[in-house]
Amino acid sequence: MSTVSPKNLRLYHYWRSSCSWRVRWGLAEKGLLSQVELVHIHLLKGEQKSPEHLKRNPMGYVPALQFKDTNEILTESTAILEWIDEVFSENSYQGKSSLDRAHIRQLSQIINSGTQPLQNMTVQAKISETVPNDPAVKKEWTWFWTQKGLKAYEEIARTTAGRFSVGDQLSAADFCLIPQIYNAKRNEIPIDPYPTILRIYNEAVKTESYLKSEPELFNPEK
Amino acid sequence: MSTVSPKNLRLYHYWRSSCSWRVRWGLAEKGLLSQVELVHIHLLKGEQKSPEHLKRNPMGYVPALQFKDTNEILTESTAILEWIDEVFSENSYQGKSSLDRAHIRQLSQIINSGTQPLQNMTVQAKISETVPNDPAVKKEWTWFWTQKGLKAYEEIARTTAGRFSVGDQLSAADFCLIPQIYNAKRNEIPIDPYPTILRIYNEAVKTESYLKSEPELFNPEK
Repeated sequence: MSTVSPKNLRLYHYWRSSCSWRVRWGLAEKGLLSQVELVHIHLLKGEQKSPEHLKRNPMGYVPALQFKDTNEILTESTAILEWIDEVFSENSYQGKSSLDRAHIRQLSQIINSGTQPLQNMTVQAKISETVPNDPAVKKEWTWFWTQKGLKAYEEIARTTAGRFSVGDQLSAADFCLIPQIYNAKRNEIPIDPYPTILRIYNEAVKTESYLKSEPELFNPEK
Repeated sequence: MSTVSPKNLRLYHYWRSSCSWRVRWGLAEKGLLSQVELVHIHLLKGEQKSPEHLKRNPMGYVPALQFKDTNEILTESTAILEWIDEVFSENSYQGKSSLDRAHIRQLSQIINSGTQPLQNMTVQAKISETVPNDPAVKKEWTWFWTQKGLKAYEEIARTTAGRFSVGDQLSAADFCLIPQIYNAKRNEIPIDPYPTILRIYNEAVKTESYLKSEPELFNPEK
């Protein structure tokens, strides 16, 4: 049993942030989400750029996980997911064998490093600043990197997937993939070219931890 | 002891690729680099876009680690580093306590996800395609993302570093940081604003595994 109490944890997140959702999903899979204090950082209102938040995460991003007793903070969603899985070891989502663990991390990074950083809000703002008044450029950019990442994920998952991305067990790879699909749908990028991903998506949205962590539940306007 | 033989491993890499260097460094730290077969993929000659290489890594990137007996491949440098550290457990570079492991992964991802993907060759080519004939735009873009990442790394490392990025033990975070500094220097980005990073850099370049993995040793033109 873990010596860390989930009640000592505070998660700074944004309802639609795909990286925030990954961590909410991991906590939900462990049955811990309802015990963790959630603090909403409204990205559209620029709250991530406040001096208080930049102290929490000098990158100016969400999520950030804080220990209430020491005020210490962890950032970077895949690092947070690994920490949660190590400390709360039941319902592991990082894989059992070394090879499963490697595949889960590989697929996670195709999204976390290869896709998400190239289409997030900060990059979209930078592109609009670099090529002003041309929304077609922003759209082409977003589509290009998303499609590159999803195509590679599809090809690899074809050899690793069972019901989910790696075998039949929901994993951190799925926590990265499905929120990216959510982003893709918002950007009207077709998912049909990726049949393996589509099949995983249709399974993942039925899981209890998806239903407890998905964005609409955390929409502050609702 | 591991049941995997390093002689069964083949690493596809490019001498100056920062992500390739991370993995060479991890292997060198384990004393395994000389036993692994190295295959050079010449990025400037476009070898990463060949049909053979796209089968190895559908993202069209290096590194890729292949098991010679099964032909199976792992990609994504941080996933490969974790796999190596799990399978060859001596001289661990992923940290001992859960919190050290979290800090190592957090700092690794500030480079792997937050910095490198936004200034790599593929992105630089995409920027030149988006804004043709304007090298100043490419430079500004590269400087902006590198400085953003290094500034955040500096602020976090100020609280985690000893001799190296996390405490006094060389770790995967250093394997990500130092090659990024190498990229920064190539792009003439000043490192002086980051005193903690500079101090870590000056220690890391003295290590045996740095000296066995650094790019110039693998320059095919030499």
